[in-house]
Amino acid sequence: MDSPARVAGTVRPGGRTARVRAAVLQAAQDELVEHGFHGLTMDQVAVRAGVGKTTLYRRWGSPAGLVTDLMVELAEQSSPHADTGSIEGDLRANAMAVVEAVNDGRLGATFQAMIAAATCDEQAAAALRAFYLRRIEEWAGVVELAVGRGELPPGTDATEVIRAVSAPLYYLLVVTREPVTAEAAERSVRRALAAAKAGAFIP
Amino acid sequence: MDSPARVAGTVRPGGRTARVRAAVLQAAQDELVEHGFHGLTMDQVAVRAGVGKTTLYRRWGSPAGLVTDLMVELAEQSSPHADTGSIEGDLRANAMAVVEAVNDGRLGATFQAMIAAATCDEQAAAALRAFYLRRIEEWAGVVELAVGRGELPPGTDATEVIRAVSAPLYYLLVVTREPVTAEAAERSVRRALAAAKAGAFIP
Repeated sequence: MDSPARVAGTVRPGGRTARVRAAVLQAAQDELVEHGFHGLTMDQVAVRAGVGKTTLYRRWGSPAGLVTDLMVELAEQSSPHADTGSIEGDLRANAMAVVEAVNDGRLGATFQAMIAAATCDEQAAAALRAFYLRRIEEWAGVVELAVGRGELPPGTDATEVIRAVSAPLYYLLVVTREPVTAEAAERSVRRALAAAKAGAFIP
Repeated sequence: MDSPARVAGTVRPGGRTARVRAAVLQAAQDELVEHGFHGLTMDQVAVRAGVGKTTLYRRWGSPAGLVTDLMVELAEQSSPHADTGSIEGDLRANAMAVVEAVNDGRLGATFQAMIAAATCDEQAAAALRAFYLRRIEEWAGVVELAVGRGELPPGTDATEVIRAVSAPLYYLLVVTREPVTAEAAERSVRRALAAAKAGAFIP
């Protein structure tokens, strides 16, 4: 991909492409956080990233294309699942990762903006869905490990357990709009685990 | 409350006031569903409801005032909690009420618009929170009945059980953006109930 991006440096094309992408996604995230998805314009992102509009349109097409790539990048940057040796520890790590993400000024605002965008834009919804399905799939590994260790019954639906840990936290965040605390994370883990041990996640 | 509303009829003031409110809230909901919270304007609501702008501004003040009153009205219209005789039946009724509401074209769109609005407007967030806290409080009664019947252990946090039934459904609706089905409702009930029976909702 040759790129007419107006960035300094004489790095090789691959490096420049990666640098342009990083600058564009950072600018897109900044604009998303400050103005929301409906205030996200290609022109402002181009200015903020210091890249040409031609590049921006050619590589990302639209604001929806920008947030789709941003969600891919955020999923890639996310850490792999925990492996603390117990399902309780691993689910707690998962729940605390959600608590930290949603309470992080920039990251939290990014997800709230995407959740808002997804209510009225199908591409934004698809980007959001892809991000979460990828994260759920990654963390499902901790449930599989727990089944292997005999902590949870065979046949436990791993992705459903991960969803069950996150759901009460997002419910606080976007539905009842209450603080998403470490205590809420602890309660969520305790309940998902009790249900899982009772076999309620076996289809 | 005397009202200069331009509505027909010579009903007594209370009746006219109520009719104006009904027309305004219906128009506000229509506009919210069609244009979202940020497209909700006092002028358009006045035109659509057939009431004067003076009335609208004096009684509701702003679009945020309109959606706040709309949420109060929707909470009032919502049915009381079920009483099927078993906690499983009652929680299923609760979960199915959520499934039906979010899949209802007009009501579902209203809540999605409010969830989007709440991500960037504190008054809209407060209106949304008040709606859900009221509904959670109402349905908590079914858990108290179940504790009374000996179906769930004493000390079970009633509002938390109700939240646990709803959370996975809203997670599908606004986070992973997947269909909110009767099957999802059934799974949610089964898991909340298993956790509650295991005592995981006793603080």
